[in-house]
Amino acid sequence: MNFRHNSWDLRFKEPFGALPAGSQVTIRVYTTHAVNVKLRTFYNSIEHFYAMVPSKFPDMMEYTLTLPDQPGVLWYDFCYEHEGHSYCYGTQNDTLGGEGQIYEAFPPSYQITLYDKVREMPAWYTEGIMYQIFPDRFNKGEKKTFEPQYKKQSLIHGNWGDSPHYFRDGQGNIEYWDFFGGTLQGIIEKLDYLKELNITILYLNPIFESSSNHKYDTANYLHIAPEFGNTELFEQLCAEAKKRGIRVILDGVFSHTGDDSIYFNKYGNYPGLGAYQSKDSPFYSWYRFNDYPNEYECWWGVKSMPNVEELTPEYKDFIFENENSVIRRWLKAGASGWRLDVADELPDEFIEGIKTAMLQEKDDAVLIGEVWEDASRKVAYGILRRYFYGHELDAVMNYPFRDALINFMMGYKGSREIARLMMSLYENYPRGQFKGNMNLIGSHDRMRILTILGEAPALSKESDKEHYRLTQEQYSLAKSRLKILSLIQLTFPGVPCIYYGDEAGVQGYEDPFNRSTYPWGHEDTEILEWYKKITALRAEHKAFQRGSWYPLPCKDDVFAYVRDLGDESYLCLFNRNTVKSRCFSHGAIKDRKGLELLTNNEEDLEQIILEPLSAKIYKIIDGRIILHGNEYKEKGIIPSKYLTP
Amino acid sequence: MNFRHNSWDLRFKEPFGALPAGSQVTIRVYTTHAVNVKLRTFYNSIEHFYAMVPSKFPDMMEYTLTLPDQPGVLWYDFCYEHEGHSYCYGTQNDTLGGEGQIYEAFPPSYQITLYDKVREMPAWYTEGIMYQIFPDRFNKGEKKTFEPQYKKQSLIHGNWGDSPHYFRDGQGNIEYWDFFGGTLQGIIEKLDYLKELNITILYLNPIFESSSNHKYDTANYLHIAPEFGNTELFEQLCAEAKKRGIRVILDGVFSHTGDDSIYFNKYGNYPGLGAYQSKDSPFYSWYRFNDYPNEYECWWGVKSMPNVEELTPEYKDFIFENENSVIRRWLKAGASGWRLDVADELPDEFIEGIKTAMLQEKDDAVLIGEVWEDASRKVAYGILRRYFYGHELDAVMNYPFRDALINFMMGYKGSREIARLMMSLYENYPRGQFKGNMNLIGSHDRMRILTILGEAPALSKESDKEHYRLTQEQYSLAKSRLKILSLIQLTFPGVPCIYYGDEAGVQGYEDPFNRSTYPWGHEDTEILEWYKKITALRAEHKAFQRGSWYPLPCKDDVFAYVRDLGDESYLCLFNRNTVKSRCFSHGAIKDRKGLELLTNNEEDLEQIILEPLSAKIYKIIDGRIILHGNEYKEKGIIPSKYLTP
Repeated sequence: MNFRHNSWDLRFKEPFGALPAGSQVTIRVYTTHAVNVKLRTFYNSIEHFYAMVPSKFPDMMEYTLTLPDQPGVLWYDFCYEHEGHSYCYGTQNDTLGGEGQIYEAFPPSYQITLYDKVREMPAWYTEGIMYQIFPDRFNKGEKKTFEPQYKKQSLIHGNWGDSPHYFRDGQGNIEYWDFFGGTLQGIIEKLDYLKELNITILYLNPIFESSSNHKYDTANYLHIAPEFGNTELFEQLCAEAKKRGIRVILDGVFSHTGDDSIYFNKYGNYPGLGAYQSKDSPFYSWYRFNDYPNEYECWWGVKSMPNVEELTPEYKDFIFENENSVIRRWLKAGASGWRLDVADELPDEFIEGIKTAMLQEKDDAVLIGEVWEDASRKVAYGILRRYFYGHELDAVMNYPFRDALINFMMGYKGSREIARLMMSLYENYPRGQFKGNMNLIGSHDRMRILTILGEAPALSKESDKEHYRLTQEQYSLAKSRLKILSLIQLTFPGVPCIYYGDEAGVQGYEDPFNRSTYPWGHEDTEILEWYKKITALRAEHKAFQRGSWYPLPCKDDVFAYVRDLGDESYLCLFNRNTVKSRCFSHGAIKDRKGLELLTNNEEDLEQIILEPLSAKIYKIIDGRIILHGNEYKEKGIIPSKYLTP
Repeated sequence: MNFRHNSWDLRFKEPFGALPAGSQVTIRVYTTHAVNVKLRTFYNSIEHFYAMVPSKFPDMMEYTLTLPDQPGVLWYDFCYEHEGHSYCYGTQNDTLGGEGQIYEAFPPSYQITLYDKVREMPAWYTEGIMYQIFPDRFNKGEKKTFEPQYKKQSLIHGNWGDSPHYFRDGQGNIEYWDFFGGTLQGIIEKLDYLKELNITILYLNPIFESSSNHKYDTANYLHIAPEFGNTELFEQLCAEAKKRGIRVILDGVFSHTGDDSIYFNKYGNYPGLGAYQSKDSPFYSWYRFNDYPNEYECWWGVKSMPNVEELTPEYKDFIFENENSVIRRWLKAGASGWRLDVADELPDEFIEGIKTAMLQEKDDAVLIGEVWEDASRKVAYGILRRYFYGHELDAVMNYPFRDALINFMMGYKGSREIARLMMSLYENYPRGQFKGNMNLIGSHDRMRILTILGEAPALSKESDKEHYRLTQEQYSLAKSRLKILSLIQLTFPGVPCIYYGDEAGVQGYEDPFNRSTYPWGHEDTEILEWYKKITALRAEHKAFQRGSWYPLPCKDDVFAYVRDLGDESYLCLFNRNTVKSRCFSHGAIKDRKGLELLTNNEEDLEQIILEPLSAKIYKIIDGRIILHGNEYKEKGIIPSKYLTP
């Protein structure tokens, strides 16, 4: 029996992807013998059945659904009968959408994301290249523009090249925070370096006063950490960055403060009354005490990070409402946007408030959320989040992208599965958020990419991790893989984000070893030159910044996609295998030539063979690429013209 | 039966104390009925008996001995018969000399130190007040005259007030060295402070390049540690100190180097070939390998400190022979002397070489040895050391002084026992070495004096020690005791040495907690003012610098002594008790008045009563003090005129 639906094929669902609330969508199935075919939908836990009717297309049935007029997620699948039996049809068990399958019970449903409004995303963001800096570890700076000041129990490594280290007491608590002495001044002095690397957006891990080195335990949202600099230096950084076409995005940590803060003031290190010290504290209402003062809610049980009640009016005033609220103050000082730490912990209303205030203050600013999964359907604490309804996040950190690409490069998943993962985000995310996806392959929360790609062993002892370095052979493999992976990142839709040092050959296991210093003077110049080349590639070819995207069916070891913009078409091919790979079956591409952009060679596309662990980026000569044969159609992958981004 | 000898009484032994080799000494005993009285001597393991003959003094027998003409230690005691029994007479079991006792077997002998020559000690040294600085912990300095550079695995505390801490790996080895950022520049900036404190000699813990914070593991004897400064800064320090009448003494660590050094170069951190790396290393002959390269002799089994073979000609050349040898080089740069670390580990010949070179280079320089016991009879590794023969040490660190005074203050030993201990050093040390005694009460190798005097509990856990502070009551007791103890130190013969921070109220258990930073801005001003007052007292009254000294018999809770110089006489009284104490029996002092120097009050000496935990320093009005009554004579303590220092 034949029964098919493919949410990525316009013949089956039109329009593609996330849709405005209240709009219409036509959903079709292909079937020859099924009867009593019904479209089943779920929306806000309410189930509806719609009888499908014959389509104008042969052997197809359809239903044109008027979508609910409030944003959310609408789920759908199908029921039908055949020879007296009931069947269902839904997405595959991976719930990614696209081609589905027949089930004998209720299936996993397809998703349609319904949004309220679409923001025209600022081009400086969607067309930019981002660089993430962990401020203590990037650069100290030569010029003494201020006197760094550190908190109690801070240690500064005497040697820039030493390893980060957690200094714990006998109970495993952090007794000392280690610093390397990076500063805002240091960043200013490296803006030209970032410029050379074609960076246009700087994302800074938190820079506000706090006792830790990571500063996710804010002590004072209105003070730059005195070891990093001061307000004047921050303004100078933004101004100097602007001169070079670089915007600055800040990290906002609003779900909790530090216990050692002017607000909580557990240790009395700050003047004034903190919430821990007295119920008369002006900050008392911010926190949630179970048994005052020692029992209080805190972030994942970490006592040094007491949670705040974000919806307390005084807190909202302080964070975003007031004229000199945190959000507004730093935008005024020069920031161009905020990244919200642990967005899942922040109430929707709070994020909405931030977004509104942000846009009032600076209408081209952007708001990025730390969400680790598909943010269009993220359920946190039992609630479906409203991130993408149009009033909250412009983008999220694209960890699914990172995971998919690592899985591909390491051979854990094939290119078809990767393509499905990407298509699923493409489908589920409103177009703005997809274009704004912060496509990272490294961050302060994950093992360094080279260490992963070099197949460093799983180590359990901290000291082993601290000192482990890849062998020459491993390093060489890692480098080859990194080149491919980074080239995918730089030719993919979304905003590529380079984690400082990844472009220079830095290795390291997870936190804290992923936070070692940028190796000034000891960079792996081969990697660095590579990064300069591929960031330039993205910067020069607008299609990589804003072209449409669609994957091409290929053998599992080759990831292939097309970027189209106007009359320009680019074919991107990545071979993860250690042997040569032919990409397409004979005759799939006929009579076409491409200019390979990495080598500047004109090549015959029909003959493409990829060397082991290599990539090719072709600019198609004379128009767009068309694949011949049935393979393309059978995989149900949509031609780019239908998916105008 | 009556039989007596008292080595501190000129009626029994003349001259007093250590004597030139080859000179004569008359030794007498008082006896009424003994027969066959013999003086027994030991010198170089050879025993001699001398029949004693009647003296011109009634009831006394004597023998005038021509002492051996080579320096060393001559031991003596007595044998006699009485009513057919044999007896011996020797010093008491504490071997301190003075009044002895009768034994029925061979007794502990009296000591006469024989020296070769006496150096006229430079007044800048013997009349000075010393201050010991652990360079990393004293002062950072405001002026940026150089860029501090640290070795791998160094941590700099971000906060000057934090506690020192050992950062160990799982095996207990030090993984990181912690620094606070003290520099030579910082010392220069505090020279005026030292001047106010009447300091005239600065003793610096090691300042040469090495990986540790204490720098007893030298990496390069010819480089100032780049975190402390450079040669120019050292020269500047010496020059600026000189302007203020302050001399600088360096710490020489010559029994071993660091393993991480240009000489041993175990980790290849230095250019050139180290002994560990190749037998072709120019430094190979310095070390003693048992199984090359990993089995080598090292200091007390500490692998990071490989021992050197000091008598290797190349090593001697390098340390003191060559024109630009270590000893000479730094004297040329401005140092006024050396303190030799672990002198017991250095061969006599090596120390003699250093002394000769030092005096050739600078004839008023001084050489101080780290010897923890009575250095006149120190046996190390089975050999009686030649420290005081006249060719080696000018002085030693006077730990016996420290121990005695702490024992007194804490009530563990009475003033009579303390007086005996002091008299014993007075007797055994050649006069120059006694005057040069480095009288310390704190050092980098001992718990902070306040912590001891405050009766801090014995703690076993490092973290408990790190955070322990005396209670207010304990601290108050400690302070009262410290005032008395420091006043003894500042009125005693020898060179008082103040361990940085002891004058400012710094507390701390043993290493590393005794090495915390000087608390600039948080000094205990009461203690500080006290120290300024008592150092001024010493500076103003020459008798404390070079007067003769003799203890006075007193009750156990009161330590009393006299300092005489020319016609001036000072009576010093210290009551450790928490109740008032009368010092002398009625009538012991008659018709005399004294000017109490701490209060500037004229008082009647006959009436002296000491308040609880207090001290009085009297300048005797109209001449010297004379004690009346028998008590004085019976205790066998010698009037100062016989003991001209």
